[in-house]
Amino acid sequence: MPGTQIKAISQTTTHLSRTSTSLCSSTQNIKELLPLMANPLSDQQENDAQRPEQSPSHQKMKRKLIRWVSYIAGDMTAFGKWMKRQFILLQIIDWVLRGAAQVMFVNNPLSGLIIFAGLILQNRWWALNGFVGTLFATISALILCQNRGAIAAGLYGYNGILVGLLMAVFSNAGDWYWWLLFPNIFMSMACPIVSSALASINSRWDLPVFTLPFNILVCLHMVATGHYNHYFPQVLIQPRTSLPNITWSEMDYAKLFRSIPVGIGQVYGCDNPWTGGIFMIALFISSPVTCAHATIGSAIGMVSGLALAAPFENIYFGLWGYNCVLACIAIGGMFYALTWQTHLLAVACAFFCAYLGSAIANVMSNFGLPACTWPFCLSALTFLLITTETKGIYKLPLAKVTYPEKNLIYFWKMKKEERAAKEKKKQEKMQLDSQIKKDEEILVTMEKDKPDICTVAVQEEVDAKRENLTDQM
Amino acid sequence: MPGTQIKAISQTTTHLSRTSTSLCSSTQNIKELLPLMANPLSDQQENDAQRPEQSPSHQKMKRKLIRWVSYIAGDMTAFGKWMKRQFILLQIIDWVLRGAAQVMFVNNPLSGLIIFAGLILQNRWWALNGFVGTLFATISALILCQNRGAIAAGLYGYNGILVGLLMAVFSNAGDWYWWLLFPNIFMSMACPIVSSALASINSRWDLPVFTLPFNILVCLHMVATGHYNHYFPQVLIQPRTSLPNITWSEMDYAKLFRSIPVGIGQVYGCDNPWTGGIFMIALFISSPVTCAHATIGSAIGMVSGLALAAPFENIYFGLWGYNCVLACIAIGGMFYALTWQTHLLAVACAFFCAYLGSAIANVMSNFGLPACTWPFCLSALTFLLITTETKGIYKLPLAKVTYPEKNLIYFWKMKKEERAAKEKKKQEKMQLDSQIKKDEEILVTMEKDKPDICTVAVQEEVDAKRENLTDQM
Amino acid sequence: MPGTQIKAISQTTTHLSRTSTSLCSSTQNIKELLPLMANPLSDQQENDAQRPEQSPSHQKMKRKLIRWVSYIAGDMTAFGKWMKRQFILLQIIDWVLRGAAQVMFVNNPLSGLIIFAGLILQNRWWALNGFVGTLFATISALILCQNRGAIAAGLYGYNGILVGLLMAVFSNAGDWYWWLLFPNIFMSMACPIVSSALASINSRWDLPVFTLPFNILVCLHMVATGHYNHYFPQVLIQPRTSLPNITWSEMDYAKLFRSIPVGIGQVYGCDNPWTGGIFMIALFISSPVTCAHATIGSAIGMVSGLALAAPFENIYFGLWGYNCVLACIAIGGMFYALTWQTHLLAVACAFFCAYLGSAIANVMSNFGLPACTWPFCLSALTFLLITTETKGIYKLPLAKVTYPEKNLIYFWKMKKEERAAKEKKKQEKMQLDSQIKKDEEILVTMEKDKPDICTVAVQEEVDAKRENLTDQM
Repeated sequence: MPGTQIKAISQTTTHLSRTSTSLCSSTQNIKELLPLMANPLSDQQENDAQRPEQSPSHQKMKRKLIRWVSYIAGDMTAFGKWMKRQFILLQIIDWVLRGAAQVMFVNNPLSGLIIFAGLILQNRWWALNGFVGTLFATISALILCQNRGAIAAGLYGYNGILVGLLMAVFSNAGDWYWWLLFPNIFMSMACPIVSSALASINSRWDLPVFTLPFNILVCLHMVATGHYNHYFPQVLIQPRTSLPNITWSEMDYAKLFRSIPVGIGQVYGCDNPWTGGIFMIALFISSPVTCAHATIGSAIGMVSGLALAAPFENIYFGLWGYNCVLACIAIGGMFYALTWQTHLLAVACAFFCAYLGSAIANVMSNFGLPACTWPFCLSALTFLLITTETKGIYKLPLAKVTYPEKNLIYFWKMKKEERAAKEKKKQEKMQLDSQIKKDEEILVTMEKDKPDICTVAVQEEVDAKRENLTDQM
Repeated sequence: MPGTQIKAISQTTTHLSRTSTSLCSSTQNIKELLPLMANPLSDQQENDAQRPEQSPSHQKMKRKLIRWVSYIAGDMTAFGKWMKRQFILLQIIDWVLRGAAQVMFVNNPLSGLIIFAGLILQNRWWALNGFVGTLFATISALILCQNRGAIAAGLYGYNGILVGLLMAVFSNAGDWYWWLLFPNIFMSMACPIVSSALASINSRWDLPVFTLPFNILVCLHMVATGHYNHYFPQVLIQPRTSLPNITWSEMDYAKLFRSIPVGIGQVYGCDNPWTGGIFMIALFISSPVTCAHATIGSAIGMVSGLALAAPFENIYFGLWGYNCVLACIAIGGMFYALTWQTHLLAVACAFFCAYLGSAIANVMSNFGLPACTWPFCLSALTFLLITTETKGIYKLPLAKVTYPEKNLIYFWKMKKEERAAKEKKKQEKMQLDSQIKKDEEILVTMEKDKPDICTVAVQEEVDAKRENLTDQM
Repeated sequence: MPGTQIKAISQTTTHLSRTSTSLCSSTQNIKELLPLMANPLSDQQENDAQRPEQSPSHQKMKRKLIRWVSYIAGDMTAFGKWMKRQFILLQIIDWVLRGAAQVMFVNNPLSGLIIFAGLILQNRWWALNGFVGTLFATISALILCQNRGAIAAGLYGYNGILVGLLMAVFSNAGDWYWWLLFPNIFMSMACPIVSSALASINSRWDLPVFTLPFNILVCLHMVATGHYNHYFPQVLIQPRTSLPNITWSEMDYAKLFRSIPVGIGQVYGCDNPWTGGIFMIALFISSPVTCAHATIGSAIGMVSGLALAAPFENIYFGLWGYNCVLACIAIGGMFYALTWQTHLLAVACAFFCAYLGSAIANVMSNFGLPACTWPFCLSALTFLLITTETKGIYKLPLAKVTYPEKNLIYFWKMKKEERAAKEKKKQEKMQLDSQIKKDEEILVTMEKDKPDICTVAVQEEVDAKRENLTDQM
């Protein structure tokens, strides 16, 4: 079955490349990007439509602004299209930047650039490792002849950046321990292999691989070497063996509030709140909906930590937030079309993810391992596997997933078409109904005149029409 | 492929609703329920059939008895049908009771009521938590728009009751610690989500989800909070680090015998032998075959414990029995049609499950976790995935699974139809054969007379017939 | 979908039985086995073809030698065919021997015999347990009515021999503790059940089950009883809690070199280098490619151990080698057709497997368990799930897998047919093209003469042909 063996990750981007070709006319592009600007702009714009008497220079400026926004927001398809004709090294830089942002499901090189800036602010050694990881993961995907569209969307890079970063974060050998680059390169080159293998499995349920390859490979590296290793020692992580000291009067509300951006930063292993703030900007540029859900997720994680009597230090450090951030983004508009039901589902998933995060962290600490993003992966996969009979929860086909705003447009369009098809069917049925009635009337009159063999034929015709009708219903 | 994405749990009950509509005539109902009463009644009845000279009043009384039994035995479809027209709150009570019994694969509200009585006898706080769990799991399934038939069969409730019960059993905060109801409600409301997600996976192999959602969620709660938690501390469970003291002379045979009902009670976390006895009655009402296999399973678990040098306390406490009980029921007539081969398979599965139970208990104790019903789930799923070339082991399609007796009727009917179809084919083949012979004879005579072009046509016809025949074979 | 439910293991051998029937003419057999002798012989043979003036007696001798080699090399199909007419007990011996060799993917009773000799050299008690395991696994498969072809290929025995051997190896009760035979028989009889269940899952991705049943069952037995058990105590395995002492000056190069055959021996749990050497002979007899990859794999494992700062004792003891041996064989020509790309992939897989081996050993030591061959299974399955767009990496359908040399012939034949089909299509296209041109010319001339209704028909014909042509392209 070659048709089903197509990798999920490759599917995600075939659409991208397709749409990029249809974007010659930038007007269409603007239309598609409109919802992006919904927060501050579209309301104004709607008003504009009702006020055509406005000055044309004002309208022109606005149109310019919208076009300018369309170039940097969303998945920057116009830029991606332009990139295709550039030199391969430049292209790889684009792919690496998109890969850096894809950790947060953002397919946008500008966001990637901002994220790298945030990483450099946090720790230059970590940022270097992250860059090396993304680069080699992308190169490895090229060597393994993976789908070019998926590579160009950064779908092979995001596991690489996490592998590189987190191996540096959890290394006990200190910063600028250059030997670390060897396992880093080895593990990031293994990313596309594990991604491809997992995609073969997950595609059966039309599910993405998320950051599972990163989780597998970083845990593999950490547990293979361990704390007691001469070459690549890891940070010592041990299970809790006594009651933590929790005094509510000692709570620091400033730190608690700061834990929200810190939680977003912890997706990349960063505990600097400024870095977290920069990441939020990177998210906002591409998709405000994603940014909003990231913030909600981080807040939910913090609340869950308080509810489950977690030590305050862990909450301040953002350890309760980062998984919820990712889970909330994934369910809230990314893989489900954003409706109020899926928004609630995203909130539920974030709570579930926080619970699961605590559980996995406790289990993994027995092996000296951190929780990584296992809780996010498992909870998001669980919530994506749900089947319901309500129409408010619509899971997008993986090949159609782009970013929440565009997904929503796709969902609306699909619903509209469905409604139109229904309407058409209804009308057809009514037409057929009326015709049958006419035929029956003719039949009745004919039977009155003479019960001939001719009427039998008409009768049969009427019966056939009626059957056809019931079939359609 | 929307057809394959239909949830397994929903499938289980579409049949129920279908059959319930065809049960207007209670005579048919009685026919279907006959095997239920096979143990004490049907033998008599067969004798009756041979003794039509018996007094009509006796016969009438017997028929009345059978009808009366048909109302409370099996899955009480007549009652379920009647319930559909009642007030929604009454319906929910019915669903909750069915959910309580579904832990043992019994779809019968009366059994559920008896089981609740047993729980109250054991511990009222536990029974309350179990009720809350079932109730909220059912409500959550309603909110998530799950299949109404599956909800009505209690298929969303049974994980809820186990979650509620076991969270109370393993809580270290003592009875009547009301805060526990919060995680209880949260976790039982997560049950339908996990059920639905797992069903999406398992349905690919036409497998049920068993109690996997309960296992996942209770382990998640226990390990997320752990023994050292301020709000929700768990019982301390630690791995064995020294040789247990086993002196065969100290064996208490009364306790050993009592471990059989205790093992059945431990399915719901109850160590009271009376509670276990009450559960056996609940099983017997719905399906004697299920009850028999439960007893066999518990005994096998006890024997396995002795064979693997387990501490006597664990065996007396029923910890070796409850997984085997469930595994033996599942394989022995529930998901396989009951033949002597599947009966042996059920015994083998129970032994395998006991072994696996010991293994899982040892592994999970490292994380402070009990074995829950993981051993049952894993061993039963393994044994349901077997493929063989023998006809004695027939796995029922998940949509046709009801209870052992009815499953057996389905199996027999199917076999009968198969045999009839074979017989028909054989006869057709013989007819065709004889006709070919006739044709050939004609041909021979014709060829003798004059080797005409006409014979060629007949020859061709004969050849076509022969080909057709070989195709059919 | 009955078609997809066919077990993977059964598929592997349907081909065997099919080919064995076509082997009446031993000349064909020799042709198929030619690549086997590629290393020392085929070069000579090619030279022979160019030197037909050679003495006929020399040629005759060579042909005799080739035929003789064909009888013992590869999968000994001729012998297998002959065996089918023998007494059942003799057949079972054949199946047991093939099962012993199938651990290394070798379907050859002679290799199995040599392997048993190696085992006896190592430890007679272990060899006995291995034999009992293989025997009962095969018998159990017969009882469970598994596919006869798969049984005859030893595909139900290889897990049995590993279960028997490793249970004896890891038992703490000492050699000749006869009670051990009970769990040994129980566990080896459970092998076909677990195999069949896993095959139901893996066949969905056309993957083999490898030694997963062995891993599951031995871990199950070891953790179910544990070190602190009265009847079946296990060797004490504990996690590392301090830095190992690694002094490069203390390195013993002789032992390091010896670790290569020891690594091959450790596939069967043997640490005797001579035993490992005997196993290499057994591999070489059946398939030199397999033997070469086994050696490469063992060397890679040793190097990886040095790179990851493993204690020298572990490396000398072959613990770093055996998983890489199996992984390298599986990827290098067994399940992928051998090209230089898959050869590199096999090397990469061996490195990945060594890393994974260290990780799994550290994790499992927490439960007192050895790594078994989990690392091999997981890494090989991962590398077999990869999908790429390159033609150099061709995964054989599971039903066509035999041994590297024959797989390669199959691959070449397939490629040749593909190329021929392409060529044919091209020619047809050219023919059609030229004919269209002719038709168009006719049309033009006709139109010149008289624009008749007749030309319309020709025009239509031309259009249809052109459409047909574009469809074909």
